[in-house]
Amino acid sequence: MLLKNPNKKAQVNNETGLGTNTALSGGRFFNKNGVPNIEVSGLPFWGRLNVYHSLLSMATWKFISVIFFFFFLINLLFACIYLLIGTDHLGGMVAISASERFGEAFFFSAQTFTTVGYGRINPIGFSASLTASLEALIGLMSFALVTGLLYGRFARPRAYIRFSKNALFVPFKEGVAVMFRMVPYTKNYLMNVEVKVTLALKIEEEGQMKNKFFNMPLEIAKATTMTANWTLVHMITEESPLYGFSKEDMNRSGAELLIFVQGFDESFSNTVVSRASYSYEEFVYGARFAPMYHPNADNTSTILHIDKLDDYIAAELPVKL
Amino acid sequence: MLLKNPNKKAQVNNETGLGTNTALSGGRFFNKNGVPNIEVSGLPFWGRLNVYHSLLSMATWKFISVIFFFFFLINLLFACIYLLIGTDHLGGMVAISASERFGEAFFFSAQTFTTVGYGRINPIGFSASLTASLEALIGLMSFALVTGLLYGRFARPRAYIRFSKNALFVPFKEGVAVMFRMVPYTKNYLMNVEVKVTLALKIEEEGQMKNKFFNMPLEIAKATTMTANWTLVHMITEESPLYGFSKEDMNRSGAELLIFVQGFDESFSNTVVSRASYSYEEFVYGARFAPMYHPNADNTSTILHIDKLDDYIAAELPVKL
Amino acid sequence: MLLKNPNKKAQVNNETGLGTNTALSGGRFFNKNGVPNIEVSGLPFWGRLNVYHSLLSMATWKFISVIFFFFFLINLLFACIYLLIGTDHLGGMVAISASERFGEAFFFSAQTFTTVGYGRINPIGFSASLTASLEALIGLMSFALVTGLLYGRFARPRAYIRFSKNALFVPFKEGVAVMFRMVPYTKNYLMNVEVKVTLALKIEEEGQMKNKFFNMPLEIAKATTMTANWTLVHMITEESPLYGFSKEDMNRSGAELLIFVQGFDESFSNTVVSRASYSYEEFVYGARFAPMYHPNADNTSTILHIDKLDDYIAAELPVKL
Amino acid sequence: MLLKNPNKKAQVNNETGLGTNTALSGGRFFNKNGVPNIEVSGLPFWGRLNVYHSLLSMATWKFISVIFFFFFLINLLFACIYLLIGTDHLGGMVAISASERFGEAFFFSAQTFTTVGYGRINPIGFSASLTASLEALIGLMSFALVTGLLYGRFARPRAYIRFSKNALFVPFKEGVAVMFRMVPYTKNYLMNVEVKVTLALKIEEEGQMKNKFFNMPLEIAKATTMTANWTLVHMITEESPLYGFSKEDMNRSGAELLIFVQGFDESFSNTVVSRASYSYEEFVYGARFAPMYHPNADNTSTILHIDKLDDYIAAELPVKL
Repeated sequence: MLLKNPNKKAQVNNETGLGTNTALSGGRFFNKNGVPNIEVSGLPFWGRLNVYHSLLSMATWKFISVIFFFFFLINLLFACIYLLIGTDHLGGMVAISASERFGEAFFFSAQTFTTVGYGRINPIGFSASLTASLEALIGLMSFALVTGLLYGRFARPRAYIRFSKNALFVPFKEGVAVMFRMVPYTKNYLMNVEVKVTLALKIEEEGQMKNKFFNMPLEIAKATTMTANWTLVHMITEESPLYGFSKEDMNRSGAELLIFVQGFDESFSNTVVSRASYSYEEFVYGARFAPMYHPNADNTSTILHIDKLDDYIAAELPVKL
Repeated sequence: MLLKNPNKKAQVNNETGLGTNTALSGGRFFNKNGVPNIEVSGLPFWGRLNVYHSLLSMATWKFISVIFFFFFLINLLFACIYLLIGTDHLGGMVAISASERFGEAFFFSAQTFTTVGYGRINPIGFSASLTASLEALIGLMSFALVTGLLYGRFARPRAYIRFSKNALFVPFKEGVAVMFRMVPYTKNYLMNVEVKVTLALKIEEEGQMKNKFFNMPLEIAKATTMTANWTLVHMITEESPLYGFSKEDMNRSGAELLIFVQGFDESFSNTVVSRASYSYEEFVYGARFAPMYHPNADNTSTILHIDKLDDYIAAELPVKL
Repeated sequence: MLLKNPNKKAQVNNETGLGTNTALSGGRFFNKNGVPNIEVSGLPFWGRLNVYHSLLSMATWKFISVIFFFFFLINLLFACIYLLIGTDHLGGMVAISASERFGEAFFFSAQTFTTVGYGRINPIGFSASLTASLEALIGLMSFALVTGLLYGRFARPRAYIRFSKNALFVPFKEGVAVMFRMVPYTKNYLMNVEVKVTLALKIEEEGQMKNKFFNMPLEIAKATTMTANWTLVHMITEESPLYGFSKEDMNRSGAELLIFVQGFDESFSNTVVSRASYSYEEFVYGARFAPMYHPNADNTSTILHIDKLDDYIAAELPVKL
Repeated sequence: MLLKNPNKKAQVNNETGLGTNTALSGGRFFNKNGVPNIEVSGLPFWGRLNVYHSLLSMATWKFISVIFFFFFLINLLFACIYLLIGTDHLGGMVAISASERFGEAFFFSAQTFTTVGYGRINPIGFSASLTASLEALIGLMSFALVTGLLYGRFARPRAYIRFSKNALFVPFKEGVAVMFRMVPYTKNYLMNVEVKVTLALKIEEEGQMKNKFFNMPLEIAKATTMTANWTLVHMITEESPLYGFSKEDMNRSGAELLIFVQGFDESFSNTVVSRASYSYEEFVYGARFAPMYHPNADNTSTILHIDKLDDYIAAELPVKL
């Protein structure tokens, strides 16, 4: 396996924060969605657990399931406690059978936990009253927590950006350019957007396999506003780390484009960041992105078609890669 | 239609993030209030929907209406469920007629959803108790959500800035300057304010209509604090993209001034941004802004008149535009 | 009244964002506490009103009073509605006299608004039930609002900095320096602190009175961390705008030092800013700040005396100002 | 005690914000965990107290204890008030003995404070009703506060970074380098990370003991992303302030490395900072960090061992320090 070194003029990037020793790391650096391809071990379960962030980032249906399940469990627990104390300490019960009594204790618990407190069933005596008081307190604190979590889930600043599925090698200005594009898919517009692209290669250096990182300069890397799609363009000039690389060179050196986007989101009034990654398997050679927007019928506004983000059309390259 | 190119000395701005192909876009770039003039299509309804941000940005009366309407709907739904279960499972009802029974079920639902739970009417048996428990849980989660939304609505950092309605062409230092002004209209003062102005023109280049963007340098573009009105001044010098432009040139090339303001709001302790746009239809030729502030009676403080923001007085230009 | 111009070498600051026309403004620019000395007029009451920020920034006792008063008013209102509907629609009342009936209606309202809902008194019939439902809804929304306000009040990032009462003219390095100091008075430490000082003078220029602003360069204007007191030092060199100024010159030109501090607060993880102002009346000529900290008994830690912030001791100046 | 001055080529850092007078300060500058080694005095208790931040930063079990204790105290208080008003104003009580009556009053209070309001016991008459209304109001406000505090505790942006226990003196490139390392221990990845290292020495200058601060340039001080461990390297070259220093020199001058880390946390979408400090007692001479990560079994991902953060292996230095 002979791996090609990029031309000397390419600009090495030593500030990626990623490891250079291929013997230590495995697989691509970032997954397609930009999440680092790293598993953490060696931390005790509780130290590693970041409950809050798990609850913030899990899918909505999971989050709601967790709440309902917790509600069920806590009522089960308190129902048992009330039964232990004795159902004669719960006034107003109409149940007769044991299972009915358990049901009434369970729903008394639910009425206490949610602080509805209809009062038909109500605690009598010290133990039952104390338990009910504490349950109401715990109930309120639980809902305080849920309030914060719901707010945190919705209000968390995020970059509402989608990236095209592929990076294209496009005929451009009598040469070849690498292009990918992105689009804000909600009304969260970004200002002062900056994009950085880094190329990661696994190449041989002084007899050892190394991860090497190179800057990929862009034609335009900054934008005052990002209100529609934006195509990022890296021209393969003599200064490009990909200059002289064939498709096979890229595959064998496990080429990966690491994308970093930073901008100021107007809705959140907050800086947001986004990451993406294009592995050599996601490169398309000889193609061009299809247009994504056009004027409306009376030419007073622009219509943006988000669903065309990934669309490209074949285009012959001036050279064979 | 022959369109004029700006003088060669004007500074082109390629980092606006706006499209350059007039055949693809329609209308002005930003509406008067700074919102991008873009419609989004091609996303499935749910993917495009950003419920949270809709609820955050809608008018207060609409937001309150949504809550009341949701409250009505959810009680209607639960009232039906209680009726299906059977009103004999709701103890304490005094209603006799069917419509009265529905009313009691509806208001029992409301008492449960809000967790008031007077208890005169109360659930008896498994189905009714379970439904009531879940309704109370859903009620609490709904109010948790409303808590977050209300906080989000009030606490969202925004630039409390108003812009003058028009951009004026003003006689200034033996020449002509383009001026507009802005003012903070609440006690939210900004620090480290920066203003950028970009001129957008639709002009012919190599036989094609293109959107071209030019920097409009300002006399003073930064301010340590913005505590009162601030008039932004672009002098039409030989370096200005508007040098030599007549009123008709501006109209025909659809001239649009894009304004970007960024600052640090002291109350929010947050960076805020604001955008505005002056289309050629909002230009006034030969005018001067009226003063907006003066000392108070005993000269110990300054009084700022927000309502004079748009006021201008006629002023003859040294040259005919 | 003959006013002295600062020496030509002084660095003019045109980016203060403050007005230069003394005929238009009155008094000092910032009050002692850094709040701009400006009154706003000409806005309709509701447009100017920023209820949220008023509630956020008012004193705690005022805020609590507002809540209690609102609670009283809303219960008064609903008590009247229940009386209008008729107290026979409130079941369980034990009151007999009219005033007692009003009391029961008032407290039924309170029990509904807070969602306690004991249920001894409970609504019967459509009108009373509907009113009670809406009151419970309004109650929950009010507490949702209060939750947000309380959080906003406590969590709002602020610079917990105190400034010395006076700016001192201190004998320093065979010359004179202007000094003031500041200290973080809670455990909110700042990082990457920057201080800017601007001198404002009212002087005559081309026959007109003008506000002029000058940079006041500091010996050290940045600090990686601010964990204890920090004395800011402006040496009166030949480049200083105060070079050659006598005490009387300063008084007659209404000298005012405008202080801007910016830093990153570790507790809030947020940038915070602070402003202060020293008017010529707050200058002390010939003094030196007293030390504010010393090692503890066993020399393992440092003790900081916040109450010594304003303390200074007389020190003869090498020249008479 | 003769203390050695660093070589002249070392870069002095006057912008640390730390005091230079050793006679005024005691002990190390920052404790091992990065918290400033300063005690504050001279503020009245209430002025110094920052209740919110205490409640935000205390351990979780303490925070919960505070809430339960407050709940107990407030119910005790209101129970006394209800007893003062007279238990005949609490309808529905079944208690007979004085202690039972106190218990019923206490739990009635708890039911009111949590707004459960079962209603078996309910207030009758003006005084009891008023007290109960106010208690419910105070209860709701308390839970509003707890909601904010819980959210604040979880949502507060923090740098989830751990630092190695020791700073190592490592044989490196035919010389010696000072190294320490850090690792993000949750899934909170940082972007645009910057590290600054400052050396603090207590040395004699012009016959006086002074704190002197020097920059410690790093081989690589910035990283676009920090997804795994990062070893910071300061090479002891001729420009290093430690050039020519022996172990004894470092001990006698109380050498302390002050570490400042700043980055943008993706989960919080917020800038976070972290501080650490290595005192001369935490230096290890002649060692090398053990690897912390390796590929997974099928080489598709990288596994990071957080528990190896502090591990080092002995390594002979080319020179004796």
